[in-house]
Amino acid sequence: MVTRTVDLRSDTVTKPCETMRAAMASAEVDDDVLGADPTAFRLESEMAKVMGKEAALFVPSGTMGNLISVLVHCDIRGSEVILGHNSHIHIYENGGIATIGGVHPRTVRNNKDGTMDLDAIEASIRDPRGELVYPTTRLICLENSQANCGGRCLTVEYTDKVGEIAKKYGLKLHIDGARIFNAAIALGVPVDRLVQAADSVSVCLSKGIGAPVGSVIVGSKSFIAKARRLKKTLGGGMRQVGILCAAALVGLHDNVAKLEADHKRAKILAEGLNQIKGLSVDVASVETNILYIHVEEGSNVTTEKLVKNLEEHGVLMMQESSSSIRIVIHHQISASDVQYTLSCFQKALTGGVLEENGN
Amino acid sequence: MVTRTVDLRSDTVTKPCETMRAAMASAEVDDDVLGADPTAFRLESEMAKVMGKEAALFVPSGTMGNLISVLVHCDIRGSEVILGHNSHIHIYENGGIATIGGVHPRTVRNNKDGTMDLDAIEASIRDPRGELVYPTTRLICLENSQANCGGRCLTVEYTDKVGEIAKKYGLKLHIDGARIFNAAIALGVPVDRLVQAADSVSVCLSKGIGAPVGSVIVGSKSFIAKARRLKKTLGGGMRQVGILCAAALVGLHDNVAKLEADHKRAKILAEGLNQIKGLSVDVASVETNILYIHVEEGSNVTTEKLVKNLEEHGVLMMQESSSSIRIVIHHQISASDVQYTLSCFQKALTGGVLEENGN
Amino acid sequence: MVTRTVDLRSDTVTKPCETMRAAMASAEVDDDVLGADPTAFRLESEMAKVMGKEAALFVPSGTMGNLISVLVHCDIRGSEVILGHNSHIHIYENGGIATIGGVHPRTVRNNKDGTMDLDAIEASIRDPRGELVYPTTRLICLENSQANCGGRCLTVEYTDKVGEIAKKYGLKLHIDGARIFNAAIALGVPVDRLVQAADSVSVCLSKGIGAPVGSVIVGSKSFIAKARRLKKTLGGGMRQVGILCAAALVGLHDNVAKLEADHKRAKILAEGLNQIKGLSVDVASVETNILYIHVEEGSNVTTEKLVKNLEEHGVLMMQESSSSIRIVIHHQISASDVQYTLSCFQKALTGGVLEENGN
Amino acid sequence: MVTRTVDLRSDTVTKPCETMRAAMASAEVDDDVLGADPTAFRLESEMAKVMGKEAALFVPSGTMGNLISVLVHCDIRGSEVILGHNSHIHIYENGGIATIGGVHPRTVRNNKDGTMDLDAIEASIRDPRGELVYPTTRLICLENSQANCGGRCLTVEYTDKVGEIAKKYGLKLHIDGARIFNAAIALGVPVDRLVQAADSVSVCLSKGIGAPVGSVIVGSKSFIAKARRLKKTLGGGMRQVGILCAAALVGLHDNVAKLEADHKRAKILAEGLNQIKGLSVDVASVETNILYIHVEEGSNVTTEKLVKNLEEHGVLMMQESSSSIRIVIHHQISASDVQYTLSCFQKALTGGVLEENGN
Repeated sequence: MVTRTVDLRSDTVTKPCETMRAAMASAEVDDDVLGADPTAFRLESEMAKVMGKEAALFVPSGTMGNLISVLVHCDIRGSEVILGHNSHIHIYENGGIATIGGVHPRTVRNNKDGTMDLDAIEASIRDPRGELVYPTTRLICLENSQANCGGRCLTVEYTDKVGEIAKKYGLKLHIDGARIFNAAIALGVPVDRLVQAADSVSVCLSKGIGAPVGSVIVGSKSFIAKARRLKKTLGGGMRQVGILCAAALVGLHDNVAKLEADHKRAKILAEGLNQIKGLSVDVASVETNILYIHVEEGSNVTTEKLVKNLEEHGVLMMQESSSSIRIVIHHQISASDVQYTLSCFQKALTGGVLEENGN
Repeated sequence: MVTRTVDLRSDTVTKPCETMRAAMASAEVDDDVLGADPTAFRLESEMAKVMGKEAALFVPSGTMGNLISVLVHCDIRGSEVILGHNSHIHIYENGGIATIGGVHPRTVRNNKDGTMDLDAIEASIRDPRGELVYPTTRLICLENSQANCGGRCLTVEYTDKVGEIAKKYGLKLHIDGARIFNAAIALGVPVDRLVQAADSVSVCLSKGIGAPVGSVIVGSKSFIAKARRLKKTLGGGMRQVGILCAAALVGLHDNVAKLEADHKRAKILAEGLNQIKGLSVDVASVETNILYIHVEEGSNVTTEKLVKNLEEHGVLMMQESSSSIRIVIHHQISASDVQYTLSCFQKALTGGVLEENGN
Repeated sequence: MVTRTVDLRSDTVTKPCETMRAAMASAEVDDDVLGADPTAFRLESEMAKVMGKEAALFVPSGTMGNLISVLVHCDIRGSEVILGHNSHIHIYENGGIATIGGVHPRTVRNNKDGTMDLDAIEASIRDPRGELVYPTTRLICLENSQANCGGRCLTVEYTDKVGEIAKKYGLKLHIDGARIFNAAIALGVPVDRLVQAADSVSVCLSKGIGAPVGSVIVGSKSFIAKARRLKKTLGGGMRQVGILCAAALVGLHDNVAKLEADHKRAKILAEGLNQIKGLSVDVASVETNILYIHVEEGSNVTTEKLVKNLEEHGVLMMQESSSSIRIVIHHQISASDVQYTLSCFQKALTGGVLEENGN
Repeated sequence: MVTRTVDLRSDTVTKPCETMRAAMASAEVDDDVLGADPTAFRLESEMAKVMGKEAALFVPSGTMGNLISVLVHCDIRGSEVILGHNSHIHIYENGGIATIGGVHPRTVRNNKDGTMDLDAIEASIRDPRGELVYPTTRLICLENSQANCGGRCLTVEYTDKVGEIAKKYGLKLHIDGARIFNAAIALGVPVDRLVQAADSVSVCLSKGIGAPVGSVIVGSKSFIAKARRLKKTLGGGMRQVGILCAAALVGLHDNVAKLEADHKRAKILAEGLNQIKGLSVDVASVETNILYIHVEEGSNVTTEKLVKNLEEHGVLMMQESSSSIRIVIHHQISASDVQYTLSCFQKALTGGVLEENGN
């Protein structure tokens, strides 16, 4: 019987801690659609300040945060956005920017480290002289850290350079910063400096920050005013939302500092897994809290069986392809969970008997 | 100095009660995007049962509930929806069904009682033989109770007849049931009977039910499966959403029964106001918790000043036009609040001095 | 055997005359997508001048002309257009402004004479202070003459007043002028004066003007520049289009002057039909080339049979409803055709034998 | 003074020949929106037969042909199309499938020969189990010949294999066949065999076929029925369109046979240019009527000046980038034009004096 669960599927699976629950239970609230919720106001003010932007807006999800941001920057019919072929917006958000927003995506290849080549970005910008047959490029999107590239971080230098390209052509720059705090901490830079070049950033509250629900987008006052309206259009306007914002404030205050430990545990796990026969992990590329395990061809078990086997021992993971598994670390994964996971993998691959719940 | 607040702007302004806060603080939660939140599951199951439909889905707002419902029924490009010219979807939801969903609205005039003439509905359905120049009618929307018509209720008989028209032409029927419980209670019919003819219903949790956030849409299993996907596309997918669902369950259990009292207070208020010189209220039309005050032309004060004057005494209301004010009653408006409001109006109009906080 | 055809279904059914065919055969042409077709350029210049606007653009159809105009004026997501509930754009253009363009239509009731009440128009304009829940009104559309109201004309005075409302609120005014020359001639005013208040007008070439294909839209240079691009997006960009423009130039020069005669024949036909037992026509309302026949309840034949009966004698008409028939006069309907049509009706209704091809 | 023009910008620049003009002048026509134009009917029937499909539809342009085809196959909100990153639809059609149609494009890299790797296509198809976050793949688009890859042809074998992938996953296959006759002739296969695997094909009439205006799309009867409606929505419905269809029929009968000569001239031109110092052309890749000239770095003149220089001598070409020029051959480019062009290039690059109008 499994009594231990180590949920490594995503950093969205964290449960609100007691402090958060207490904060929610006592949150001061009012009707946020009428612009009156004091706790929402506090969260938004604080996040704007942390990110170094004029204003902020709480939204129900990261998907809505990105959708609103792209649609506000591309509010005129006939807009095109440049984004990574492997970016979350392009792959995992239902194609909403086109199917809901009518924005045409133009992809540039993401390198393994998450970057897109700067000259490839520049070459993708449409020449306004060809406007009779071209859509109008209005936006470049980055993602930092870049989930599908294994949580790799874009540096300040890189981001600034993309920002310069954007400025040169009169484009906006949006950063999908679902895990922007992970990136800032891994890079050792202040988060506001990291996003300085961006016109807007979406920040997830229910990943590393550990809140139950929501994201915040930040940008200029006029961007946020338009975003607030579009949020209502999409159905993201909520009433006594201070409940959720109270939890997010606790997460922002208490959990950001824990991200560094998450990254360390991810590294330890990566190194451990890489030593197991039949598995390989590109340890050097594990910069934050995400790692991809490659199940080698000659391995004892198929990837599918491996995921199933570990699930039976309470270790939950996402199979990415026929030969790879994704693992995400968060603050509710302890050092002991990491050791337990390693031992489960070891036994699954070497055929040894797994001790349950052992460490 | 105002120490008393009587907030009559909307029934969305209620604050979560202690029971709700306790429920939120102790709610069992999990990642709802991964389909695992047990409290969301409980709320959805219960609401589906109450409404007599196969399945249900929690969404962040009534606007999203209606948007998803219309878009799921009109999932093919070139669709048209028939709806009241005075309906919430047409007037107050940013035109999202067209601007986000590309659905063409065809309005039928709402009568004073909220109904649309049945033959006018039927005449608005497009003849498929004209498809070269016509969009395809796919949906009829009703609203019950009908906010903009003063909270008037559509009867079972009327709803069934619209349902028959829909069936005859192969259309779907959606009910914007933001206040469907108010209607059922005012009509004295079971709510599931009232919406029996509908293919989908959106029910607001943060109006009469008094929860802080959210709506639920109900319908067939296949409708809800499509709705779940569209919710994710729009950015309505939230993680540990059981927090909010726990509050909604308390509201559903405790507050529905209070709606009858709300309606009585609305009636008392309407009768009282109608006796004040300079004001008139169509008392007979006050069927639920909404009432419109007409400020007569010869009145001592303008509507604007009247609203301002009462605001200074803590009574908050919405000005609808240059001569009308909307008031909405909810379970946090006591009998004493009603008397206080009446006295404030009395004094504002007769020029008497208002006693503050008096009853 | 029928050897005579009197096609009264629409003024779109005219066949190009010999002069037009000769003009097409000898038209100077080049690639219009590359901006090089001299005949297109001539047509556009001439039409701009006639209509008193800066610039013009040839498009494949009136539907595209209206679609482009609405979409250019409403190029920002979240736009709303005010238009007649009985207008061609709302009823007969597939709802394209919403289903293709995402523009939200707000209808105002058309009076019998085609006008919309000015105060109803003004009341439909959204208050920008409500932008959180309202779309943004950006455009008012008129139609002149108004087909579905029996070809009734909007006067200069009326059009100017609507233009003043538009200006007051910062809106644009578009006129669907499919039959604007009919209106100008019926009203006895220069066509450029009639559309003076409009920011854009679409003019049909294949109705009264008698060209085989196309419409022209006119407006400011910047409007036309945006329109040219959208035309390409929609697939309206055509290559050696001078062929079609040459025919249109002939129509513009030769056929506009014939419209007055069309109107006279429509009047004669209306008066004649009104005297036939079982039929009634509101003769006074026949201002241009369109007339509606009401088949009275006690009549000998059903509307359907009547249409069929006349079709057998070569008289083609559109049945509008179970008791009405639409007739449209154009320059290829002679005085003799009118008499023949009257005799066919007469015989069909009095049961007399119809002489074929007689006049 | 230039008296000779050699227009190599595109094969869209051809002027209608005398036979075409005569055909237009005498074309039997009627109102095609009412489904009555006999010449349109003849063109559509003939093209359907030639392409081996059930039905066909004349449309104003290739852009509309592709737009309609993609939108009909992707008529449900939330659709995704797989297409080449270098395809005409993705690059040169204003992003209309997304900005007008809300279809999400997913690009696969085009190889130099115009193909996309089959496994890359297959890998791009969305797994339906991920539908909560994925759009639904509904369509694969090919382009044959592939303009932006230098007019390279996709073989029957390749096309069939893509068709098999489409079938395996329940997808549709559309071929942008703007130059499908060029491909069929270059490959030496019947055109109906070449497009056998496709559910729809758009064929341009104003490129190699030499008609002034239009494209035809072919497919099943139900596809064409939906296409006809969408054509009306987009504003592509035209009245006496037989004028244009008569010209197209002449082109179809007379000009297809001339394509082989076009290809030969393209080859001769390519070989000649490749021998000029400072230029290089990948002669082997010139399979049809398109060729790209690479202006080498050490060349005497910049690309821009070269294009300008030749323009002064009547040779018109499109500059593609800072170092490349596109040339397109059509039936109005004679052997002598090719020689003249070569001599112009020779002199421009070697600094020799250009004889004007010489051959």
